[in-house]
Amino acid sequence: MTEPYTLILLRHGQSEWNELNLFTGWVDVRLTEQGQAEARRGGELMAAQGILPDVLHTSLLSRAIQTANIALDAADRLWIPVKRTWRLNERHYGALQGKDKAQTLEEFGPEQFMLWRRSFDVPPPPLDDDSEFSQVHDLRYAGIDGEVPRTESLKLVIDRMMPYWESDIAADLRAGKTVLVTAHGNSLRGLVKHLDGISDADIAELNIPTGIPLVYKLDENLVPLGPGEYLDPEAAAAGAAAVASQGKK
Amino acid sequence: MTEPYTLILLRHGQSEWNELNLFTGWVDVRLTEQGQAEARRGGELMAAQGILPDVLHTSLLSRAIQTANIALDAADRLWIPVKRTWRLNERHYGALQGKDKAQTLEEFGPEQFMLWRRSFDVPPPPLDDDSEFSQVHDLRYAGIDGEVPRTESLKLVIDRMMPYWESDIAADLRAGKTVLVTAHGNSLRGLVKHLDGISDADIAELNIPTGIPLVYKLDENLVPLGPGEYLDPEAAAAGAAAVASQGKK
Repeated sequence: MTEPYTLILLRHGQSEWNELNLFTGWVDVRLTEQGQAEARRGGELMAAQGILPDVLHTSLLSRAIQTANIALDAADRLWIPVKRTWRLNERHYGALQGKDKAQTLEEFGPEQFMLWRRSFDVPPPPLDDDSEFSQVHDLRYAGIDGEVPRTESLKLVIDRMMPYWESDIAADLRAGKTVLVTAHGNSLRGLVKHLDGISDADIAELNIPTGIPLVYKLDENLVPLGPGEYLDPEAAAAGAAAVASQGKK
Repeated sequence: MTEPYTLILLRHGQSEWNELNLFTGWVDVRLTEQGQAEARRGGELMAAQGILPDVLHTSLLSRAIQTANIALDAADRLWIPVKRTWRLNERHYGALQGKDKAQTLEEFGPEQFMLWRRSFDVPPPPLDDDSEFSQVHDLRYAGIDGEVPRTESLKLVIDRMMPYWESDIAADLRAGKTVLVTAHGNSLRGLVKHLDGISDADIAELNIPTGIPLVYKLDENLVPLGPGEYLDPEAAAAGAAAVASQGKK
């Protein structure tokens, strides 16, 4: 066969609200200094291992865009074309956006908490349009197809992401381009679920660490030739464990 | 008439080679700390005056892309769509790329020096393809229409820029978008020459300061409704004087 296709997934590093342990979702917070350092290291890992993107896809959220800008700067690839889309945004966390995770856990109990965080198709209660954490009046979503979400389950994230995977990301891969996707815990979980054929039940257990490029080699049907590989496997294992323990303060 | 169209031009701030007083052209050097601070201030000026871009056009050179990334971060507009093109690149300085400006002035005399720097249609001698400062083997220009330049006059810059102005920048303006162009001394001089109808002879005298957004309001034929206005006129005047004195060390 021809050269396999290369897809690089990169989850943004620590944001201001990760640090504060708040549900973020579509709220547009920035990276912390630590998050910026993670992004830089992600770019250095790509450069050191010679896995260099030809095109970038990001969400419309600043923390993913900052991650891409910093990583590409470190990898000397600032000049590649970029496409941004709301379809790669983090899951909209509904009424939980802006709430403290530990406090939510305490208030609603571990069962409800895990249901909202990890169930495949149960969204949290919708966020009120008048909330300061709502995006219904955010200009950047003026061109969105359909309505700005008020809440999302992982299933809804996948439903809105997959059309973009087909129309844009898969198209770039088939053109032979090495594609970098910088996005979020849940949009990337959705993508990995699709690539690895993970069941609706099992996806709850998947934790993607931040700041470490995850590289897939894909055949001509965009089926992975093997498991995705982190460019720093040791750090990735530690990072995944850290993500799994979030909210357990 | 309808609302006028808005075009914002932003020249990148100090680069590593500006600081060293070298001819840069297509050599891909980065911003200095001062250049980064200039970019941040440019973004803050846009934010403070509420002149916020809907779409970004940049060259393929890192110093212009860094400028855009930093300015948009400061203006909270990281999420806008971006298009990059070699057609907005700095003028290719031919065999002068990598040479010290003061030394070149001394070696060739003020007449030849000013002819190369400021004449409209006399390019410097071509750069050898084997030079470390050549871009003929740079991957980012693999998709270029025609040949990677070996040298350029301002006329040649305008010749390769104007098709992009028509096809992409003007198209975005006509769609009612506020357009930000982050680019270089000579590609922006070419654009201002076109907008203001400056003659081939007079354009030599135009100096665009770095890091200060220059805003044009355009009518439906993309003709300026008045002179372009710098968002900080005082700093712009001082900056233009500084640019004019370059090479006179």
